[in-house]
Amino acid sequence: MTRKWLIKDGTFAVLHQEQTVIRGYMLIEGDRITYIGQERPEGVEGAETFDGKGLLFLPGLINTHGHAAMSLLRGYGDDMVLQEWLQQKMWPMEAKFTGEDVRWGTALSVIEMLKSGTTTFLDMYDHMDQVASVVEQSGIRAVLTRGVIGLCPPEEQQRKLDEAVLFARNWHGKANGRITTMMSPHAPYTCPPDYIEKIVQAAHDLDLPLHTHMSETLAEVEQNVRDYGVRPAQHLLNLGLFSRPSLLAHAVHLTDEEIAMLAEHRVAVSHNPGSNLKLASGVARVPELLRAGVTVSLGTDGAASNNNLDMFEEIRLAALIHKGVTGDPTAIPAAEALRMGTEYGAKSLFLDETGVLAAGMKADFIALNLKQAHFLPKTDYISHAVYSAAGQDVEHVWVDGKQVVKSRECLTLDEEKILFEAQRAFEGLLAR
Amino acid sequence: MTRKWLIKDGTFAVLHQEQTVIRGYMLIEGDRITYIGQERPEGVEGAETFDGKGLLFLPGLINTHGHAAMSLLRGYGDDMVLQEWLQQKMWPMEAKFTGEDVRWGTALSVIEMLKSGTTTFLDMYDHMDQVASVVEQSGIRAVLTRGVIGLCPPEEQQRKLDEAVLFARNWHGKANGRITTMMSPHAPYTCPPDYIEKIVQAAHDLDLPLHTHMSETLAEVEQNVRDYGVRPAQHLLNLGLFSRPSLLAHAVHLTDEEIAMLAEHRVAVSHNPGSNLKLASGVARVPELLRAGVTVSLGTDGAASNNNLDMFEEIRLAALIHKGVTGDPTAIPAAEALRMGTEYGAKSLFLDETGVLAAGMKADFIALNLKQAHFLPKTDYISHAVYSAAGQDVEHVWVDGKQVVKSRECLTLDEEKILFEAQRAFEGLLAR
Repeated sequence: MTRKWLIKDGTFAVLHQEQTVIRGYMLIEGDRITYIGQERPEGVEGAETFDGKGLLFLPGLINTHGHAAMSLLRGYGDDMVLQEWLQQKMWPMEAKFTGEDVRWGTALSVIEMLKSGTTTFLDMYDHMDQVASVVEQSGIRAVLTRGVIGLCPPEEQQRKLDEAVLFARNWHGKANGRITTMMSPHAPYTCPPDYIEKIVQAAHDLDLPLHTHMSETLAEVEQNVRDYGVRPAQHLLNLGLFSRPSLLAHAVHLTDEEIAMLAEHRVAVSHNPGSNLKLASGVARVPELLRAGVTVSLGTDGAASNNNLDMFEEIRLAALIHKGVTGDPTAIPAAEALRMGTEYGAKSLFLDETGVLAAGMKADFIALNLKQAHFLPKTDYISHAVYSAAGQDVEHVWVDGKQVVKSRECLTLDEEKILFEAQRAFEGLLAR
Repeated sequence: MTRKWLIKDGTFAVLHQEQTVIRGYMLIEGDRITYIGQERPEGVEGAETFDGKGLLFLPGLINTHGHAAMSLLRGYGDDMVLQEWLQQKMWPMEAKFTGEDVRWGTALSVIEMLKSGTTTFLDMYDHMDQVASVVEQSGIRAVLTRGVIGLCPPEEQQRKLDEAVLFARNWHGKANGRITTMMSPHAPYTCPPDYIEKIVQAAHDLDLPLHTHMSETLAEVEQNVRDYGVRPAQHLLNLGLFSRPSLLAHAVHLTDEEIAMLAEHRVAVSHNPGSNLKLASGVARVPELLRAGVTVSLGTDGAASNNNLDMFEEIRLAALIHKGVTGDPTAIPAAEALRMGTEYGAKSLFLDETGVLAAGMKADFIALNLKQAHFLPKTDYISHAVYSAAGQDVEHVWVDGKQVVKSRECLTLDEEKILFEAQRAFEGLLAR
């Protein structure tokens, strides 16, 4: 029998234009929200109730770009020039990653994400069967993709592509539909053009969206112009990438023409403000992208360049830095920043049943503990969630109608064991 | 008898150039740290011990600019143009503030600050006796100053100045030395030149430092040039302000000459990155200031323009935004950002016995709970504190050798009552 339960006396961030917050009731049946409103719904006499008093319910946060296993390298090399950081720190360690390492690194990240209110994340990495298995067990929702780098001989390129196709085919729709998949050439500067075309063709064959890094740094844009005579967006357009639903990570360095091109082809952008600042990549033109009608969502990137996976921080950064940099205090208001971390996140991942608190949607939502000094007075809860909150304010989390975090404890994963194993995996990498 | 107690098995952020963290012991006698080192100190046989395992000890954070009572207006007007926000939202409400409102607003802020690891704060506001009384009761350390606005008739100017002098004299050195005072003309654009000169003279008479807002917005710099023919730093120099130890809040818009002038006159700067971004004031030239030898510390500003008082956020913003804006990933490394929030904070407030974990210093320190996913693996704890932590990770807080927060509960203030009264005070302001 489908479980039916009612949250009463809650404050719900519905983010409607005219009314951002509703005080009242939310009904959940199985994996879906079936009612949300000020009045008690009809026909719920027998339903279990949950006391929502003192809690702010938000749609679960959606992290649209990351490499979960990289949390194993958190704090291993900071404040360095990008190429030194990659060449001296990240790549030598990542080359040693086994499936086990990816398992524990991903599990460490999933615990952090769930406990800080993320209910859906995109992951682009390697050893993706391990990632999928952690996702399945943890109860989180995820869009998974084997990111492929094509700077290798053709046979190895083909092997990676076959692996990516097999993974995408095996796992798409699994875990009660919580897992979907994409295809991912790593970036225009790490994949030769003909390889990108093959990956696009595979995405067509599988009917899957595409994800890639683009224009994160000025240097890679300049290289693209040198190597191919055009900037990255035109290059990807020429290779057919935008003929599929696509999501670009970063997109920091864009011209007006590129912004118009992304809007025209309905290409979504994952804005990663924390990572872009920390690696000194620059500040993406988010207000212009939004104005052009591009769907802009938020990602943490890997924990090695962030260094946490707290989406509240990305939401706040998105709301703050574009004001400071453009000089316009109305750039990206609070509600818009929260939509970037929720509704626009779902759109960016081509998921149409999460990211919003509304009847008919999947029951992916979180509850913040409002009985804290930094949430007073009771003025504007959306402002509080965006400008005052941190991941640690998340008290409870539900995904697909199931509670996965209760009173700040993760119910689905063994936190103590995972913290221990993640540390051990890091020590193993150092020792090898 | 002086209480003597020993923390064992702790990790201590000493922030030495060659070694940022020590694992071992810290001895506290009365209100002071008397030992810190890897080896167990001699002569502590009888001392109480405290298990420091799994905790990262940092110097208490120091918030060098704010208006604590303004937390009553948190979320009451966001994402607005500065002048509209001030004229339509802040000023009409602040005009109604009574001493009671200031008491509850300040108490709300002190709870938030203590629980998020701030052990010293500067407060510039009105009804300062109320502020001092909350500070005395709470156990926090504070530098208090009655900020005076001089856009009023001479008699009112004089009344405000007398009030500021009386407050400074009455409270300086009170609460076991936890309270010190300063003199504060609000800003060059809100105080006529002769009034600023009078305040400077009073600071000389009282032998106190000076604090003022300066060059927060481009508009006020332009106005200063129009009205007085010089930019604000030269204007304040001409009025004698820099003849006293001085601290400037914001200092966003500075020329190279002004930076050199602040360095020459040893004027400290309170950088308020969150507030400057939110109000779209711009990004201060912090790397240049530090390179010139200026002491730069961090402040939250009032909660109405931040919107929280979590100094971990300001530390992280200081470490992140200057990298992103200058394109230099080595700008303001993690340890330097943490020093800005601790050691340089103490220097900015002319306090020489707090801000550092070292023998001889006042025992103002905090402990972070390291047993959390976002603090793994055990790579670089300074990086974790700066790039991963939030105020909610603070488990315990001590000021002047006394524990004021224990297991995330404030021991000195009645949190439930203060949350209730702060909400009631806000509702009273709305109704009046």
